[in-house]
Amino acid sequence: MLDNPSYIIDTFFAIFAMTLIILMVPGFAMLEAGLVRTKNVSAVLTVNVMIYAIASMAFLLVGYEYAFGSWDHQEGMSKYAYFLFQMAFVGKVVNIMSGGVSERSRILPLAIFTFIVGAFLYPTIVNITWGANFLSGTVLDISGMADLAGSTVIHSTGGWALVAAILIMGPRRGRYKNGKVRVIPASNIPLVTLGAFLLWIGWFGFNGGSVGSIASKDNADAVALTIMNTNTAGISGAIAGWLLTYFRYRKFDITMILNGALGGLVAVTAGPDQYDMYTPILIGAIGGALVVFFVPIFDKLKMDDPVGALSVHLVNGIWGTLAVGIFVADVSILDQLKGVVVVGAIVFPLAFVIIYVINKVFTLRADDNEQLEGIDAIECGMEAYPEFKRSI
Amino acid sequence: MLDNPSYIIDTFFAIFAMTLIILMVPGFAMLEAGLVRTKNVSAVLTVNVMIYAIASMAFLLVGYEYAFGSWDHQEGMSKYAYFLFQMAFVGKVVNIMSGGVSERSRILPLAIFTFIVGAFLYPTIVNITWGANFLSGTVLDISGMADLAGSTVIHSTGGWALVAAILIMGPRRGRYKNGKVRVIPASNIPLVTLGAFLLWIGWFGFNGGSVGSIASKDNADAVALTIMNTNTAGISGAIAGWLLTYFRYRKFDITMILNGALGGLVAVTAGPDQYDMYTPILIGAIGGALVVFFVPIFDKLKMDDPVGALSVHLVNGIWGTLAVGIFVADVSILDQLKGVVVVGAIVFPLAFVIIYVINKVFTLRADDNEQLEGIDAIECGMEAYPEFKRSI
Amino acid sequence: MLDNPSYIIDTFFAIFAMTLIILMVPGFAMLEAGLVRTKNVSAVLTVNVMIYAIASMAFLLVGYEYAFGSWDHQEGMSKYAYFLFQMAFVGKVVNIMSGGVSERSRILPLAIFTFIVGAFLYPTIVNITWGANFLSGTVLDISGMADLAGSTVIHSTGGWALVAAILIMGPRRGRYKNGKVRVIPASNIPLVTLGAFLLWIGWFGFNGGSVGSIASKDNADAVALTIMNTNTAGISGAIAGWLLTYFRYRKFDITMILNGALGGLVAVTAGPDQYDMYTPILIGAIGGALVVFFVPIFDKLKMDDPVGALSVHLVNGIWGTLAVGIFVADVSILDQLKGVVVVGAIVFPLAFVIIYVINKVFTLRADDNEQLEGIDAIECGMEAYPEFKRSI
Repeated sequence: MLDNPSYIIDTFFAIFAMTLIILMVPGFAMLEAGLVRTKNVSAVLTVNVMIYAIASMAFLLVGYEYAFGSWDHQEGMSKYAYFLFQMAFVGKVVNIMSGGVSERSRILPLAIFTFIVGAFLYPTIVNITWGANFLSGTVLDISGMADLAGSTVIHSTGGWALVAAILIMGPRRGRYKNGKVRVIPASNIPLVTLGAFLLWIGWFGFNGGSVGSIASKDNADAVALTIMNTNTAGISGAIAGWLLTYFRYRKFDITMILNGALGGLVAVTAGPDQYDMYTPILIGAIGGALVVFFVPIFDKLKMDDPVGALSVHLVNGIWGTLAVGIFVADVSILDQLKGVVVVGAIVFPLAFVIIYVINKVFTLRADDNEQLEGIDAIECGMEAYPEFKRSI
Repeated sequence: MLDNPSYIIDTFFAIFAMTLIILMVPGFAMLEAGLVRTKNVSAVLTVNVMIYAIASMAFLLVGYEYAFGSWDHQEGMSKYAYFLFQMAFVGKVVNIMSGGVSERSRILPLAIFTFIVGAFLYPTIVNITWGANFLSGTVLDISGMADLAGSTVIHSTGGWALVAAILIMGPRRGRYKNGKVRVIPASNIPLVTLGAFLLWIGWFGFNGGSVGSIASKDNADAVALTIMNTNTAGISGAIAGWLLTYFRYRKFDITMILNGALGGLVAVTAGPDQYDMYTPILIGAIGGALVVFFVPIFDKLKMDDPVGALSVHLVNGIWGTLAVGIFVADVSILDQLKGVVVVGAIVFPLAFVIIYVINKVFTLRADDNEQLEGIDAIECGMEAYPEFKRSI
Repeated sequence: MLDNPSYIIDTFFAIFAMTLIILMVPGFAMLEAGLVRTKNVSAVLTVNVMIYAIASMAFLLVGYEYAFGSWDHQEGMSKYAYFLFQMAFVGKVVNIMSGGVSERSRILPLAIFTFIVGAFLYPTIVNITWGANFLSGTVLDISGMADLAGSTVIHSTGGWALVAAILIMGPRRGRYKNGKVRVIPASNIPLVTLGAFLLWIGWFGFNGGSVGSIASKDNADAVALTIMNTNTAGISGAIAGWLLTYFRYRKFDITMILNGALGGLVAVTAGPDQYDMYTPILIGAIGGALVVFFVPIFDKLKMDDPVGALSVHLVNGIWGTLAVGIFVADVSILDQLKGVVVVGAIVFPLAFVIIYVINKVFTLRADDNEQLEGIDAIECGMEAYPEFKRSI
């Protein structure tokens, strides 16, 4: 017989979930590379690769132990597998922020910010939610918040950092002129589609793996229900994104359909294990609708976000966390709200100060001339598509 | 000890298989986006995303229960995992059809057709083969057909729907002129290659997961043999596609090599668990050869199919189903033939009527001027590669 | 209870690992398609597809039994799963070689070379290291070499074959002129990035699966540590590649960052199960640094290698094998060195003779005019991006 079968199976399952999440690295990279203009594609890709490398290294060296208190807190599976699973999350927080400031940010300051997020900022939030919890017993204790896989811990955290960055950096050159929004079309729709689906598939690992164990009948059901509900919110968000844009503009806008799906996926992430199998249809549809409504609102506020990350991650991170309080009987909406507020109240000012200082010392924002030339030329010395003639 | 270890392992295995199959969503999307002209790429991608969302939603709301009789028919694994695995199949049927009518179809009618397929048409076929079987005991009972993972249930079904669609819609503008076939080259070969390999990897989940359980020594062997045979038919189909085109044209045609591989994969899908490990070499080689021979035949019949779906899915779906009867001693070729005929006799007329009505009410076919301008401009208001200058 | 739980779990785990490795097929294809010029992209993709098909077929028909002595040598899991896992490796050896001679090689001779490698050359190396070992008891016995997943068996082997090919074929037309190296920029950076990450994820399966079993507490830990260390060496190599190029050129060179990561991954591959969780930081950093230093060295030697395969695979294959002897107490550096030398002394002359003969009979090198026109036009009759206007 096997010694320790649940240890073996849960280690295997965490490794499986981790590999799906790592698919989100090329997922984010392709999504963002497809959404920005060709002159900024190499820079966006470089940033994505560096975020993964630096955030993971910072978490290995500093952040993991800070977040969870020790390397040996985990007993049900291999500690290495648990680290891998948690490490796979870290870069995502910076991805959300970096995506929203692409086409105008320099690379080195983002690299420094990434290290700080991976070593300190994100682990702080993990510490007080899923981890060692240094706020335990204080009035700020938010461990009562239900957030299975990070609607707040990951997505709002990244979203608040993005708000700080946008306020400090301002919009891209020429984005808002005479009160009008200049449309800047995505340069490569196949990459956008590929990236969105790699993210989608990664989400199965993100949420399914967050159940923590598959090694009992109940847990196997919980994992399967979690993944099913995750997917349902995604398809529902896509359909909402489609219908709302179609009936307004009579066009099929694939970027809105995909961002609707991603909004639905973020929204379900706080509680996919706790819903019945129909509730995520509603949660996801609202998630997709929120994306459609908030994208123009942020533009009205002149908060320039080339990839829609504020609507997808921040708005739906909040919505998704509250939704557990609304739809699950034994989860308190006040606990959920408190979690949302406390995390925002910690992340936003910290991120603001960090980014402000980084911007002063290293100049985060590429100036207008540099933006006109393209970040690729300035920072990478390398075009993404050097042989293809530009039409614009 | 673990309670219910086979339940746990089979739930995990179904989730694993499902994630591989979901890779086929970007797989089909990239394959088709690479095969069509750049002016139709956004539309093709939009259709692929919408098919996944709508077909899955229809199956969740209506189709699954119709196909299998109840949500609780499955006892060996989590019912949610079993649903996920089955749901991952649904969109494929429409993918086969939509790919074959790309560059000339409008999106909304396809979306409506997708819902009908996911809620009703595909579940009808599943019902009488893998499911509740309302034809049980009647003269039309085809539950004796061996079709492990859908050479007939998925691939021929999609293929018959495509025949109906092509007959109703006609060819693309300018495809057949003065008795000649105008070659319309694929616009992006890397995407074609990427898409084909995502499909290939998805096939491991499709066929391996269809064994139904991995949780005994015999089943573990059956799953591994199934995946090995699946892969062998793919490589054999690729080699056949290569050799037959190379010796005729003295050129290496990667689209034929990849379609040959896909043809081999379709062909082996009815019985990969029942062959020894060398038979799939023959089955796949014939599958690849059928693609090479049938692509020009369909063009002679003026059945315009930009991605070769008729040859890959319909012809090889039939061949693969018959092959089990030929190569496996205790499977009757007559049962196989009966299954092929009954499914065709149900799907083709139903699909024809449905598509005919949809075409009358919503106009499925983009007219010649719209095709000239490109479906992207007409339907999406968005180019796939707006910054790249076109050479043609 | 389950009969034979470890057999079931290890079969499942081998299948999981194999699917990750198969992701390396599109991984190599995208990486190379992105690194070469657009006029050679279809050819590069065709070669990648054919390598997978032909190498796997050769291994199935001949190589596997030669390498391991019999189909039944494996008892802990399904023999079909073990074959699949081993088969997934084979094409990689040729990928390393073919990538390094791209933009100047004809396809048919590569196909013939692939068959010989899959049937004979690679199985010979597997035989004397992981397999039946016909050198057992002789002075050349290198079974004492620690090489978990092939720093030497896969990567050096491919690298030595590449050295032979480069010596026979010479550089690309116009690469070295008047003592200067003409820079030939990569044509599609998103594909390079996507490809590198598919390889990275595949590596988890490559190295994790090579532990051979996950079905005990110790093995589960070993697998998880192996994957963690693999990833750590990758991120460390990426950071080294970044910093060394950044401080020299003040630019962010994503191709060097990604090749640095791949160098780190190759370097850790000989012993990721034997290091503690910090050692791979050093091993990977040296791996990344070696890539940065050796790429210009090979150019000085006029060994033209468009994808950097010599530095990534050969140099780091050697470094990684020696590193186990340096960092692991009970592994002898002399055994490691002996393994490196013996494999090189077998592979290089054999590959040289085989490629020399193939080149004489079939002309492996495309001549200067053909290279100017592009291998796609000569060999495939098909452009990779026919609708995109070239700027150069």
